[in-house]
Amino acid sequence: MIFRQLFDSVSGTYTYLIASRHGGEALIIDPVLEKVDRYLQLVRELELKLVKAVDTHLHADHVTGLGALRDRTHCITVMGEQTHADVVSMRVTEGDCIEIDGLSLAVLYTPGHTDDSYSFLMGDRVFTGDTLLIRGTGRTDFQNGNARAQYDSIFGKLLKLPNETLVYPAHDYKGDTVSTIGEEKQFNPRLKVGSVDEYVDLMNNLKLPNPKMMDGAVPANMHVGLHQDEIARKGWAVSAAEAVALVLHYRNGGRNGRYTLRSVECICSRSGGRSPTRCGLHYQYLEKITCSPLGGLDCQQPCDRVQPPLVMAASAAGSAAIGWSTRLVVMVTI
Amino acid sequence: MIFRQLFDSVSGTYTYLIASRHGGEALIIDPVLEKVDRYLQLVRELELKLVKAVDTHLHADHVTGLGALRDRTHCITVMGEQTHADVVSMRVTEGDCIEIDGLSLAVLYTPGHTDDSYSFLMGDRVFTGDTLLIRGTGRTDFQNGNARAQYDSIFGKLLKLPNETLVYPAHDYKGDTVSTIGEEKQFNPRLKVGSVDEYVDLMNNLKLPNPKMMDGAVPANMHVGLHQDEIARKGWAVSAAEAVALVLHYRNGGRNGRYTLRSVECICSRSGGRSPTRCGLHYQYLEKITCSPLGGLDCQQPCDRVQPPLVMAASAAGSAAIGWSTRLVVMVTI
Repeated sequence: MIFRQLFDSVSGTYTYLIASRHGGEALIIDPVLEKVDRYLQLVRELELKLVKAVDTHLHADHVTGLGALRDRTHCITVMGEQTHADVVSMRVTEGDCIEIDGLSLAVLYTPGHTDDSYSFLMGDRVFTGDTLLIRGTGRTDFQNGNARAQYDSIFGKLLKLPNETLVYPAHDYKGDTVSTIGEEKQFNPRLKVGSVDEYVDLMNNLKLPNPKMMDGAVPANMHVGLHQDEIARKGWAVSAAEAVALVLHYRNGGRNGRYTLRSVECICSRSGGRSPTRCGLHYQYLEKITCSPLGGLDCQQPCDRVQPPLVMAASAAGSAAIGWSTRLVVMVTI
Repeated sequence: MIFRQLFDSVSGTYTYLIASRHGGEALIIDPVLEKVDRYLQLVRELELKLVKAVDTHLHADHVTGLGALRDRTHCITVMGEQTHADVVSMRVTEGDCIEIDGLSLAVLYTPGHTDDSYSFLMGDRVFTGDTLLIRGTGRTDFQNGNARAQYDSIFGKLLKLPNETLVYPAHDYKGDTVSTIGEEKQFNPRLKVGSVDEYVDLMNNLKLPNPKMMDGAVPANMHVGLHQDEIARKGWAVSAAEAVALVLHYRNGGRNGRYTLRSVECICSRSGGRSPTRCGLHYQYLEKITCSPLGGLDCQQPCDRVQPPLVMAASAAGSAAIGWSTRLVVMVTI
């Protein structure tokens, strides 16, 4: 396995680049916009294909690299279904898996720092975002944070993992890179509370200043770090309905003077589940891609009639089509 | 195995805390003085016994934590035999091993950044100090640095390790935490040279400013980060000859109103080798310790007559006794 922990010293953010092997598919967790060049350099050097970019939650202290990575690699952007980000290809919830070739991350819904906070479990390690930090926990005083929910997330889910599970958080400000569940259980000062009420009291009286970048980062991250309004003004945006029509149009072999889809990824509804997953348009590997039923989309066969490669980014179509996203942006190169 | 990479953001230094198991012996590589409290907290939490503190070389950009760790844990301080640090318990050279319970680090002499630069190979990973950095190499323009020697160290030793060997350097300033030999071979811009002369030209024309902390750090590190002059002025210092006499005195069951040795570690001369190794006084585990021949010291049996536990730090006695250190400091608690 390739496992790289990368650090942004400005925001104290840890980003994780993961692949099962040199030359294989990769995913990245919590990328920072300013570091995107470095990530992509590493992806090229290791001959990886970046296929998924995941944020544990909508960050308030740095601008996410999700949008930039999507535009530059055509990767699928992934966040929790509660997120307020406007364009995300794949929205996950408790019990889902985020998969790439050779690796699978189990999705744990761990709200509290924000209402869209998730953790991801991969074998011997868990990526805890801002829910559980090394000898700390993420603040719960903004962005629909909730100390009571965080207590449940930590005590009810994360601390139930085996003691030796490695804890990889989204941040550290003191120079630690990793911990374990056992250590945090024993030594995390925030967790030395006798009850949920005590924890709520503790968290509600931290009196922390807002993160320096919060005023800029939160609005930017609602648009996965991109200036999507500008893109929309340039006429590169389509509505969810238009996107679905567009996909169907190309699915049926049509062409259109304005857009050419490079490929379309599956949009599927989990049988019996309440929420569709694996949604989104994915336009990286045409030869691999099949479409599954959802609403107007009904193409079970490989979309071999969809033509490459003019659409640069349509990764939000799936979630937009099912009403999760308020707007869909399709970027067109020609 | 417990493996912790710890970061000092002020100097961009990586420190490594390593142990074979929870509750076992540990060693630390390149500790930073200001972070000593955090290291010791972690050592306590993981129930480790810190038995060795190693510097890859005499640093110019931060004050080492070696002396403080020695005084607070009675660990053995370890550096290369060329080092100008005045008190180091164990001086190692190419071909030696640094061992703790369950783990062994092979010692590679890799001069170039300084003349006392070493790398340490442990299974699938190598600690490269400032010799080989991630996509860089340590500067060679001060502290007896030598670009030609560094070329030989890198091309002749480090790059001959298997490609998949993980590279853990002493510093990174860009947010990388680890690399591999294969990656550095392919992508390190400093190593894209056709000959040793080209490398020397490159390194001699970097025109870097001196490290901010250099004027303070180098003199401090000559004394393993401690104010040993002050200790000497307080009358807590003895000469090398006095130290040997003291050891012999206690070896023979004597007592002394001023000092009581807690234990004595082996001081041995490698048979046929040019330099003695495993030298130094070690006063942590009396029951384990034997003394081997060197100069005036000749005690092959366990030093069971040596009495605990008043001497707090005599870790330089071995090297001082064989003429490597200009002065020996013995700290006495009572």
